Amino acid sequence: MARNGHSHGRPPAFALACASRSVPPGRSGNAASTERGATMTGFVSLVGAGPGDPELLTLKAASRLRTADLVLHDALVDPAALGLASHARFLYVGKRARRKSIAQSTIERLLVRAARRGERVVRLKCGDPFVLGRGGEEALALAHAGIPYEIIPGVSSAIAAPGLAGIPVTHRGLASGFAVVSGHAEQVFAPMLRAIAPQSLTVVVLMGIANRARIAEVLVDRGWPAQTPAAIVLDASWSEQASWTGTLAALGGCQLPAQHPEAAGVLVIGEVVSLAEALSAATATAVRAA
Amino acid sequence: MARNGHSHGRPPAFALACASRSVPPGRSGNAASTERGATMTGFVSLVGAGPGDPELLTLKAASRLRTADLVLHDALVDPAALGLASHARFLYVGKRARRKSIAQSTIERLLVRAARRGERVVRLKCGDPFVLGRGGEEALALAHAGIPYEIIPGVSSAIAAPGLAGIPVTHRGLASGFAVVSGHAEQVFAPMLRAIAPQSLTVVVLMGIANRARIAEVLVDRGWPAQTPAAIVLDASWSEQASWTGTLAALGGCQLPAQHPEAAGVLVIGEVVSLAEALSAATATAVRAA
Repeated sequence: MARNGHSHGRPPAFALACASRSVPPGRSGNAASTERGATMTGFVSLVGAGPGDPELLTLKAASRLRTADLVLHDALVDPAALGLASHARFLYVGKRARRKSIAQSTIERLLVRAARRGERVVRLKCGDPFVLGRGGEEALALAHAGIPYEIIPGVSSAIAAPGLAGIPVTHRGLASGFAVVSGHAEQVFAPMLRAIAPQSLTVVVLMGIANRARIAEVLVDRGWPAQTPAAIVLDASWSEQASWTGTLAALGGCQLPAQHPEAAGVLVIGEVVSLAEALSAATATAVRAA
Repeated sequence: MARNGHSHGRPPAFALACASRSVPPGRSGNAASTERGATMTGFVSLVGAGPGDPELLTLKAASRLRTADLVLHDALVDPAALGLASHARFLYVGKRARRKSIAQSTIERLLVRAARRGERVVRLKCGDPFVLGRGGEEALALAHAGIPYEIIPGVSSAIAAPGLAGIPVTHRGLASGFAVVSGHAEQVFAPMLRAIAPQSLTVVVLMGIANRARIAEVLVDRGWPAQTPAAIVLDASWSEQASWTGTLAALGGCQLPAQHPEAAGVLVIGEVVSLAEALSAATATAVRAA
């Protein structure tokens, strides 16, 4: 739908990018053809699945799942989300910390091959496809292979996990911006964390649970006060959601529940964490009242 | 649904936060009561509407709209999204740049009052409620008033707008993190931009279209190369979506299409912008092919 009725006369400096909203990859142009030498190809949707709760899928993601022939999915995708894809085949291509897993190039090859067979493929990725999820690499592989595809953004746990624990990543008077960084490897997170002046932004770290002690150390070395509020949010939006709040000084030593050894955890550092108590208490009340 | 079947025995260091997923604010506990002195209250859902396309609402957002009695919505929410709320009253409480608009405290008072009347209220906010949207203030107001409420995260245009223009905010070898800042006022954005070392993270600026020249200047002063790739994405996910890519040096002088005077625009600065050409070309092909 056009917003303000303006749809004509663009200056040449601006490229009109086709929004994908009104173009479902339908049965019209890309139906499967099993004939040899068929030139028609399928279609790949790179879809963000959100933080976990299948109700946090977008309507568009649900719609693509319903018509999918093949779904390639990550480790942290809920079975209920997969259940929407009622006539699809499934391929688990997840990668988890410290486990041997499928090569990225293999995933890309599987996507291209299935599309060339004429299939409607959904690549279901945790969170948003373009937040530390190698969605860009998959998109490039499809582009280079000439496979038509689309991006369907998802709810990123970088924002949703703090939010569901009562921590707004921005809040007037506390933070007007935030940084999201990968906590997977020190050679990556240390330079990024050092690049941010202390207390200038809320810092959200994805995939940093195992390195939380070192992450806290780097921040304190960088000049963040040891008493800066910090939080860990585990399994956001799942029924097991749990969170801890404390200080940067205590972050490294915080014991995780034994049941969350490989949890999809998010670290949050900054003054906004101080809102968690008021907001999560109210949310808990809400949940009991409902 | 439980993920790995672990739901017991949490160490006391960890607070178990009730996830809201399985608790729809239903007709059971908070139905409207019009009797004088009724102690039952309604329920407020602070809902992220996503970047614009109603198909980028989450399933949960759509579900809350369908059962809403009252919807308070922002300027940039699509009428099709509101159409889901088939038996609700609507209140427009949007704020747009440079226009006189409703006070934040009035919005908060309206939410509290409606809930006290026993209504199921949806506060439908662009993007995610906790990204530069004052959702935290609304949540605090509800908490202080003792009103049960929930947060329903949404797709943030901070991530989705670049993504839909073919720009992953992170990409292996180019950026392992990103910063999102408000570009609304120089006294806010200048310190934040100066706090980030040049080229360390992708920078995404929301509400910064009008200040793009000054934003580019601050970044160049800070040491970002003038040739750093930069992009503007307007009306992401709407049919009018348009984008420009160039350099930081050219960002300030880039002419906007006349039809987008108050566009919901996002600025993106960093090497990841260099992927836009390959990715948006492929997406455009996909759209034509489908």
